[in-house]
Amino acid sequence: MKLFSSVNDVQDIKKLVASALELKASPYAHSDLGKNKTLGLVFMNPSLRTRLSTQKAALNLGMNVMVMNMDKEGWALETQDGVIMNGTTVEHIREAAAVMGEYCDILGLRSFPKLQNREEDYNEEFFNKFVKFCGVPVVSLESATRHPLQSLADLITIVETWKQPIPNPSQREGSNISHNPAEWQVSPTGGDLEGAVLPKVVLAWAPHIKPLPQAVPNSFAEWMCKAQAEGMVDFTIAQPAGFELEESFTSGAKISYNLDEAIANADYVYVKNWSSYKDYGKLLDFPEGWMMNNEKLKLTSNAKVMHCLPVRRDLELASEILDGPNSLVIHEAGNRLWSAQAVLKAMLEEL
Amino acid sequence: MKLFSSVNDVQDIKKLVASALELKASPYAHSDLGKNKTLGLVFMNPSLRTRLSTQKAALNLGMNVMVMNMDKEGWALETQDGVIMNGTTVEHIREAAAVMGEYCDILGLRSFPKLQNREEDYNEEFFNKFVKFCGVPVVSLESATRHPLQSLADLITIVETWKQPIPNPSQREGSNISHNPAEWQVSPTGGDLEGAVLPKVVLAWAPHIKPLPQAVPNSFAEWMCKAQAEGMVDFTIAQPAGFELEESFTSGAKISYNLDEAIANADYVYVKNWSSYKDYGKLLDFPEGWMMNNEKLKLTSNAKVMHCLPVRRDLELASEILDGPNSLVIHEAGNRLWSAQAVLKAMLEEL
Amino acid sequence: MKLFSSVNDVQDIKKLVASALELKASPYAHSDLGKNKTLGLVFMNPSLRTRLSTQKAALNLGMNVMVMNMDKEGWALETQDGVIMNGTTVEHIREAAAVMGEYCDILGLRSFPKLQNREEDYNEEFFNKFVKFCGVPVVSLESATRHPLQSLADLITIVETWKQPIPNPSQREGSNISHNPAEWQVSPTGGDLEGAVLPKVVLAWAPHIKPLPQAVPNSFAEWMCKAQAEGMVDFTIAQPAGFELEESFTSGAKISYNLDEAIANADYVYVKNWSSYKDYGKLLDFPEGWMMNNEKLKLTSNAKVMHCLPVRRDLELASEILDGPNSLVIHEAGNRLWSAQAVLKAMLEEL
Repeated sequence: MKLFSSVNDVQDIKKLVASALELKASPYAHSDLGKNKTLGLVFMNPSLRTRLSTQKAALNLGMNVMVMNMDKEGWALETQDGVIMNGTTVEHIREAAAVMGEYCDILGLRSFPKLQNREEDYNEEFFNKFVKFCGVPVVSLESATRHPLQSLADLITIVETWKQPIPNPSQREGSNISHNPAEWQVSPTGGDLEGAVLPKVVLAWAPHIKPLPQAVPNSFAEWMCKAQAEGMVDFTIAQPAGFELEESFTSGAKISYNLDEAIANADYVYVKNWSSYKDYGKLLDFPEGWMMNNEKLKLTSNAKVMHCLPVRRDLELASEILDGPNSLVIHEAGNRLWSAQAVLKAMLEEL
Repeated sequence: MKLFSSVNDVQDIKKLVASALELKASPYAHSDLGKNKTLGLVFMNPSLRTRLSTQKAALNLGMNVMVMNMDKEGWALETQDGVIMNGTTVEHIREAAAVMGEYCDILGLRSFPKLQNREEDYNEEFFNKFVKFCGVPVVSLESATRHPLQSLADLITIVETWKQPIPNPSQREGSNISHNPAEWQVSPTGGDLEGAVLPKVVLAWAPHIKPLPQAVPNSFAEWMCKAQAEGMVDFTIAQPAGFELEESFTSGAKISYNLDEAIANADYVYVKNWSSYKDYGKLLDFPEGWMMNNEKLKLTSNAKVMHCLPVRRDLELASEILDGPNSLVIHEAGNRLWSAQAVLKAMLEEL
Repeated sequence: MKLFSSVNDVQDIKKLVASALELKASPYAHSDLGKNKTLGLVFMNPSLRTRLSTQKAALNLGMNVMVMNMDKEGWALETQDGVIMNGTTVEHIREAAAVMGEYCDILGLRSFPKLQNREEDYNEEFFNKFVKFCGVPVVSLESATRHPLQSLADLITIVETWKQPIPNPSQREGSNISHNPAEWQVSPTGGDLEGAVLPKVVLAWAPHIKPLPQAVPNSFAEWMCKAQAEGMVDFTIAQPAGFELEESFTSGAKISYNLDEAIANADYVYVKNWSSYKDYGKLLDFPEGWMMNNEKLKLTSNAKVMHCLPVRRDLELASEILDGPNSLVIHEAGNRLWSAQAVLKAMLEEL
């Protein structure tokens, strides 16, 4: 793999999920693969899960990791061509990306949308220029319109937990949990849900006080649409009017404007806020009743509840769910590690 | 060891000191112990000594280290339960801690007090919630009320230098000092002062222009009280009226309000400012004459002078002492490495 | 090598260049040399190329690396002696440097000039005090008046590319460039240009909107003057009146105030802005016609164009050059890695 920026960069998502679950069972089985290889993680925006999980994934593969917080440690980058750089930008992305490519075998890049100009964001100008000029394989750590490492982790989590006992969240409060990933539970389906009854997965819009990017829901939608096409899941998206995602991400998904109807008999509810695509970047007015809580959970098929985190408690998602037995959010965050490790492994194998 | 947050987490302080001095003599003897183990260092506040010494300690044990400056690289965390998160906090410590626990085998946490609400600080709310929710062993990198890695380094320094020639500070200015720890001096007492004449140790309050936390003096006091109970030192605390530490930290210590009387015949003077516990977080008016200098040193038994650093020269402690033959401050900072390595080794052995 | 702060710290620049080119051909040949050795990189100012290239160089040698952004992660340091520290500085460089020396085998330091007091900057007060008090070998990551890792990389680049085909910059835009350094081109002259026709190298002042330090041009000048004395290059400096560099850096160089005359028949043009030394730290008025572009390039002997980066496009240097076949800037930045690795190797060999 030379680029991991969307589901379209993956030849076979079932194989990639299976690879991730194999790595989870044997994290250090390929610790020579990354010897003398360096991963550079470039952040234009803050990160917790993505940085730590990707860094750990690279370490598991024997890579060296260099983290560069360009927003704090570096300086403002110019992306436009043909401008005289006599303003606030200190370096052009043409040079900055190419230079980072000189020191790293693989680069990861996080670059959020500005949510001001839809065309600019959806052209993925910054991300694509970085890819073009750096000259080495690039893994997206979340771009303006997608967060594929998150979506892969989400798919891994669904495959792994479908028809399995729900992990006990109270374990998180003890100190004697096994952190030996080899002891963690792996689905006997081996990453392949074909032939089984399909889990009903619902992406459910949630309230927020700030307009958030569409990257996580776009990305989750395109991965689930692909998984649906491959016979792995049954996929529905629910949002209030005005919050429809861009159509190319949702092709094949059932669309609902009624949360209660959408989550009926759901096996997985993926909770997430996003701002409007149509009225770009705006947090439009929205009706009451879009926050998942235990009452709504009763409508589902004892659904497991997911969220990419960070989550604002009792605004996006009820504490009673996060602290209850149906929450997968920590387990899901843990799978970010295997998501990143599977992608890096695939890239290392083609270096 | 599953938790290192105070002297009470240590079964046998003499053995821990002895372990640190063994590691100082053979830093890489256990470099396989940490193989494929990851230490996450989480800072809610700035750090120099603590970060570098703990990172180096982990590297000596063969661990991987990931540093997360939450205050700069991350976002504001919520600690209260039951609040609707529609304000400035982006993520709850329940999720943030649990997620970090997913990627790390051991976590270190620094979280200073706010010095506004005594009960909140002394409940160690932030630190304890982090420990509760992260699900992996935690080492304190300084919490609201304690700095145990510092105090262990202080005890190591006293054990190591008692009845030994004072290290020559002028060596610090040359470039040919041995930095091979195997060549550094280890006390023939092997970490055990029993049977010897006890060193008189005095914790001496010092002036400052800002109100500082009580974490370092609290912690030093509780470690010295414990060491006194174990027959290792004779311990006195001196401070102006109003600056008394919380009593549970000082049980067994002699208390003085007269610096000159307290340091008479002292073998070690540990200089440190702290704000008032009673009039919480305030820098009360204080009398003249509380800064250690060479004149006061004459009252002592040629005492070795300690400070945790950073130190404000000629405000807290006279330059003539810091640059003179009685200062242990750099040597003491160097021992932070062995303090951290002994604690991490004990944690790794029980993983 | 115990100190790398200027060309005067190097016994034999030809040997150092040859060592760098050998490391470029076999980056991991000495990966045991740095085992259990730790490099601390201390930044008082932002860094991209220097941080990543030096970190990678150390990793190639098997070292551990700890990065400390003192400007963001730490606090303000005092450098003056004899002051009562009751202001904004929290720690004296005497303690801070000594403490960092306790945890690291080699330290790197970046500390820019303030451009306010020429004597203070040119005394290299901060850098020299750090070297004096840290007690371990120090490599400059750019100080107030010099940037020797950059200058060494520049010399490596000239040696490597003289009489060689120009690297094709369009390769940077593809994703299938070889990043196996062993496949990169190494000059058959083996780092020794003696006996060959000398390349004409011109350091050419360039416009800017901000007053920049003289560190890069000072350093480039002293390295080129040394290389000229060793029969490796023919060296000219061109700048508008008022921008003359301090004489001790330019001894032996031809000086010109006419860019077109200076670059006539040049083989290498090194483009860089700097502020005035005479009218210290000022960006004086300057005449038109000092920006290198394709028209000026015609005056040269098809010169290769260099710049240390970051570069402001079409202000300092024309895009048409940066994007054209004569630019060496990315290749030059890539050589920062081998520059740093050669220096660290020389330091490790004498530890």
